[in-house]
Amino acid sequence: MQFIGINHNGEPWAAALAGSHVLPLATVTDFWADPEGWQDKAATLVAGVSSHAGAEGNDASDAGAWLERGSVTEVPLVPAAARVICVGLNYKAHVAEGSFKDLELPPYPTLFARWTASLSVGNVPVPVPAGEAGLDWEGEVAAYIGRRVESADEAAAADAVFGYSTFNDITSRKAQKLTSQWTLGKNGDFSGPLGPLVSRDEVGDLRDGLQVRTLVNGIEAQNGNTRDMIFSVPAIISLISQTFTLHPGDVIATGTPEGVGYARTPQWLLQPGDTVVVEIEKLGSLTTPVGDTSLRSRA
Amino acid sequence: MQFIGINHNGEPWAAALAGSHVLPLATVTDFWADPEGWQDKAATLVAGVSSHAGAEGNDASDAGAWLERGSVTEVPLVPAAARVICVGLNYKAHVAEGSFKDLELPPYPTLFARWTASLSVGNVPVPVPAGEAGLDWEGEVAAYIGRRVESADEAAAADAVFGYSTFNDITSRKAQKLTSQWTLGKNGDFSGPLGPLVSRDEVGDLRDGLQVRTLVNGIEAQNGNTRDMIFSVPAIISLISQTFTLHPGDVIATGTPEGVGYARTPQWLLQPGDTVVVEIEKLGSLTTPVGDTSLRSRA
Repeated sequence: MQFIGINHNGEPWAAALAGSHVLPLATVTDFWADPEGWQDKAATLVAGVSSHAGAEGNDASDAGAWLERGSVTEVPLVPAAARVICVGLNYKAHVAEGSFKDLELPPYPTLFARWTASLSVGNVPVPVPAGEAGLDWEGEVAAYIGRRVESADEAAAADAVFGYSTFNDITSRKAQKLTSQWTLGKNGDFSGPLGPLVSRDEVGDLRDGLQVRTLVNGIEAQNGNTRDMIFSVPAIISLISQTFTLHPGDVIATGTPEGVGYARTPQWLLQPGDTVVVEIEKLGSLTTPVGDTSLRSRA
Repeated sequence: MQFIGINHNGEPWAAALAGSHVLPLATVTDFWADPEGWQDKAATLVAGVSSHAGAEGNDASDAGAWLERGSVTEVPLVPAAARVICVGLNYKAHVAEGSFKDLELPPYPTLFARWTASLSVGNVPVPVPAGEAGLDWEGEVAAYIGRRVESADEAAAADAVFGYSTFNDITSRKAQKLTSQWTLGKNGDFSGPLGPLVSRDEVGDLRDGLQVRTLVNGIEAQNGNTRDMIFSVPAIISLISQTFTLHPGDVIATGTPEGVGYARTPQWLLQPGDTVVVEIEKLGSLTTPVGDTSLRSRA
């Protein structure tokens, strides 16, 4: 089952996604109060509509009101209070290419923060802040927490994952590197696009390997595989849960493979007019156009 | 004018605070849509009630329904989506005492993130996570953003401050120091208590100096002054706004002076049963009891 967030009745809602149609289910808040329950309900509704009416327009009255995906405004399927916990340096070859190349393999996942205010969705342009020479791409998998997690072992942590999506951790490198802490450069306006959430049963275990590719203007910039992660999603969740309690709707951004732009000679950074696409097996394709700083006026 | 957050009609509300009474004004969301407007409205209501009825009980009908502060449950006066942007290393003597003592004075403010899920209010116990030897105190001033701020100079940034409160940036040092990024150790359950918000007109400019004291079981642990900040609040806001756009209700935690516990020989960390108090001129006193890890079950 796939889900997206949409603006509906003036509020952020969760909707089931089936092909080119979406079915509004509940407000984002209500959805994350019982994501597994909504997944079951959505499965029944989608099965019902495909067996007798086809997912076309609003005519499947017993299956709720289906909408054309193209007619809705999408929003991140994340509660406002959610934590987006990002993992830096989670692929060996990425550790080796950047500012941290003289480090040994990190003994713990390097965790940094995005606020939900930085999140976005596919096809929404990201502005280059005026002080940056460009933006850098970081294609990766986002994992969504489905249950409360406090001091969990890895098995309980694995069970707490509700699903996954594509994510592009688009970075303002100059701001990121001003000091030891990366926060500023990781929270630019519209800089964190998320793709549709795909439920865990359709994805399986990331350690079995999903190919992660990033394309800039059609040119391959990253091509990694989640089997090369240093820290597994359950290990990351378990570690976090020793210090703070995770809630449904919290997101773990699992880190990017090698091939980012700032570490190249010469540097290659995204400029207004460019388009960056993150493609991940089973999760789909996430497109982000790059615009100039004037787009910040929408934030 | 002073404000607090309260649970009211099942929702987080903003309330005016006058002595031992509170007046619910609007939901936290509506309050931050127009904080200056609500400040004006609250001033009129408080003046009305003191001129004819006294702030007692619910009998001042034309001034709204006043409640005893002791009868309400307080909550952080912060929108769920707010960013709590914390400044590390903002007092020279604090830079000199800790892990960063060999650094020169930092050329930029070191910014790290708290999510609103870590926030709390006065008199709510903070649990020591099971893996920590204790918790560390960091008494400081929090500044609240009152207007949208994009690429502002320092003058515009200064005008965007709506008010200030006490804050204790209570830290899980072991988790903070696992990697280069401090995020994990700065987001423990209930670890960020905020005191009542005092509007800017009652506080003035932090550069004129507010005494910041932290007391552990009545013993003075920190005694600094905001005039010794390396980076002023307007400078911090201006810098942030070059990369991302601030919104009303966002919070800048302005950094702690010297005297934290982990840098002492021997270390001095908060244990269950301890009480830590942050006292700041014009902003009041913020008390936090320390409890054991079992209190995490409430998060």
